Amino acid sequence: MSTAVSPLAPTRVPELPPVAGVRLATAAAGIRYQGRTDVLLAVLDKGTSVAGVLTRSKCPSAPVEWCRTRLKAGRARALVVNSGNANAFTGRTGRAATRLTADLAAKAAGCRPNEVFLASTGVIGEPLDASRFAGVMDGLVADADADRWRDAAQAIMTTDTFPKVATARVRLGAATVTINGIAKGAGMIAPDMATMLAFVFTDAPIAAPALQALIGRAVVDTFNAVTVDGDTSTSDTLLAFATGAAAARGAPRIARAGDPRLAAFRKALEALLADLAEQIARDGEGARKLVEVVVEGAVSKRSARRIALSIANSPLVKTALAGEDANWGRVVMAVGKAGEPADRDRLSIWFGDTRVAHRGARDPGYDEAEVSAYMKRPEIRLRVGLGLGRSRDRVLTCDLTKEYVAINGDYRS
Amino acid sequence: MSTAVSPLAPTRVPELPPVAGVRLATAAAGIRYQGRTDVLLAVLDKGTSVAGVLTRSKCPSAPVEWCRTRLKAGRARALVVNSGNANAFTGRTGRAATRLTADLAAKAAGCRPNEVFLASTGVIGEPLDASRFAGVMDGLVADADADRWRDAAQAIMTTDTFPKVATARVRLGAATVTINGIAKGAGMIAPDMATMLAFVFTDAPIAAPALQALIGRAVVDTFNAVTVDGDTSTSDTLLAFATGAAAARGAPRIARAGDPRLAAFRKALEALLADLAEQIARDGEGARKLVEVVVEGAVSKRSARRIALSIANSPLVKTALAGEDANWGRVVMAVGKAGEPADRDRLSIWFGDTRVAHRGARDPGYDEAEVSAYMKRPEIRLRVGLGLGRSRDRVLTCDLTKEYVAINGDYRS
Repeated sequence: MSTAVSPLAPTRVPELPPVAGVRLATAAAGIRYQGRTDVLLAVLDKGTSVAGVLTRSKCPSAPVEWCRTRLKAGRARALVVNSGNANAFTGRTGRAATRLTADLAAKAAGCRPNEVFLASTGVIGEPLDASRFAGVMDGLVADADADRWRDAAQAIMTTDTFPKVATARVRLGAATVTINGIAKGAGMIAPDMATMLAFVFTDAPIAAPALQALIGRAVVDTFNAVTVDGDTSTSDTLLAFATGAAAARGAPRIARAGDPRLAAFRKALEALLADLAEQIARDGEGARKLVEVVVEGAVSKRSARRIALSIANSPLVKTALAGEDANWGRVVMAVGKAGEPADRDRLSIWFGDTRVAHRGARDPGYDEAEVSAYMKRPEIRLRVGLGLGRSRDRVLTCDLTKEYVAINGDYRS
Repeated sequence: MSTAVSPLAPTRVPELPPVAGVRLATAAAGIRYQGRTDVLLAVLDKGTSVAGVLTRSKCPSAPVEWCRTRLKAGRARALVVNSGNANAFTGRTGRAATRLTADLAAKAAGCRPNEVFLASTGVIGEPLDASRFAGVMDGLVADADADRWRDAAQAIMTTDTFPKVATARVRLGAATVTINGIAKGAGMIAPDMATMLAFVFTDAPIAAPALQALIGRAVVDTFNAVTVDGDTSTSDTLLAFATGAAAARGAPRIARAGDPRLAAFRKALEALLADLAEQIARDGEGARKLVEVVVEGAVSKRSARRIALSIANSPLVKTALAGEDANWGRVVMAVGKAGEPADRDRLSIWFGDTRVAHRGARDPGYDEAEVSAYMKRPEIRLRVGLGLGRSRDRVLTCDLTKEYVAINGDYRS
């Protein structure tokens, strides 16, 4: 397996400032990897509210089920994330492992187990030996510090080739609040390494139901608009924590997502999730191209999304992109198979700014050399005009290379 | 692009007997290929009925639209198939090309253009120069012969690595009737070569509506249960022709698909389509393994089918199969993402006869060496027990190899 950093990795990585009320620490518990950290603890001040979006898989991991139950109360004091083992499809043993992990963290952090949130990423079906956390938990609490954001992003990586971080500062009432986010892993990642995980932390005082509504809306065009291989993990988890510490500096306490004072926060949160989601596409396994698929002129946004995903998940479109081929015939195919309203004779297709197909036939005027040059770029924009309505949507994806097959198929041979 | 025959190609290829009322001829019209045949003409006796199943793509090719309209009358006197150009997404020019082809064939064969059926496979978006057929059509009619089945299967190939044929003889009333079938191409095939095409010919006297009902039912568990990459072509076409010539030998004229005298015919037809469909999976691009995915214990057949397709189309499952890895964690993932009823804690998974996962966890008793040896076979059976109901379904697929990416992505570089 290649360990080279993705050629699509961001060239500028921001320094993440502290978020009042959040302390982080990482350790090497030896879950699966040697010589690297594999567990992250976030200790959260009293009064922290939490919201989450979890995988829709019908076979979710034990930590996903743990979180789903605890999200109802909306209160968090700690987050424990491990890499190397997903604790998925582990039956009763898996449930016992989540319980033990929460007990250990609660004892060390001085809170109740139900205030501990959990996420695991790594091999599916292997029992997670949670007793390994016993040896590191007290040290993690003692070490926890406000400045460990990059370490945190590093500890939760599996086959990610770079840590994923994002930050924003935004006005909330009279105060400035911070939003930090870390994430890992595109879709179902290499050697059994399931999972997209993302954690967002803010000092804004936002009640859990409002936070839930905010992230529920924000994922639609960010995390839910990214696909690497169309394979949904058993463990996908986005958790957002709001410590409320900014209230002491004059930030208003927000009870409803519709509160007009949230306008800037809402925008910043969505931009931050979009940033993390894009980083995930940039680190798709084997990816050499970041691809934006835009569908316009659809009868509804939902229809546009489905057609965009049909294009973005098509192995034939993705291999053509890897081959730097403006193969719009395959785009036609993917539009046609989506099952959504489409009229061949109104369909137009662009690669970058070049219209290659127009109203059901090849655009006679297009410049092949121009398109060929465009296809060599690391970032490709593929646009489809359906000519049926006024709705539009976009998704991000990457190309499908031999390296993807190697990462996911070669490791046993 | 590799031209080696698929390692999964059938070792025994049947000789196809004549079908009374059907004569075949092939020619090299130079549509795209050099040094090989690329057009097939089937001349059908008067009284031949026809039925068809066409792609559900919303962007169908011009020949698909031509056939859809002509199928209503249910009468056929000729079939023209070309390889090298799909005549798809070719706008008005494409419609003119189908018209010209039908006119040329009708004139040569002495029938009406509306009795000519068409199929094209190859590049999408390039205008098809149907005037090339003018030079060969009279010769095709003059050459047409009862014994050209293998030549016919060869002429319609694009990147298929072997011609696909099947035959059956079966009792219908007091007579024995023949069913011959030829097919090409799995899913959307290499360099723009869209399309699965299949043509079935019988001398049984079956009226068009009954024939339509028969093949409509027969595709469900045959052609519709095969997937290579989940990409549906703009041109998928199955046409069935019944000349009725066996009536002269005492075969009863069949008006309804429910006629009890059809029992043996129905069974043989379905077996023949299953045979052709399996050959298509065996020739999936880059395929090294034929994979049967069986889902049992589902709440309905439809639900079992969806889960089986979710597994069979998962890039992560398919790359694991290519890597000879019994990676049941990815099967769990694919079950979970299908959106169908599934209960992790009732789920069991087998590779071959070895149960690797049972009731939501790894089967503690399974023999890793046994499974590893099994995964090296060219034919793999992957079985999932949902433990929810009594319904069952199966689909055929192949693995996803680097060769797939090379075939579909490398050709421009």
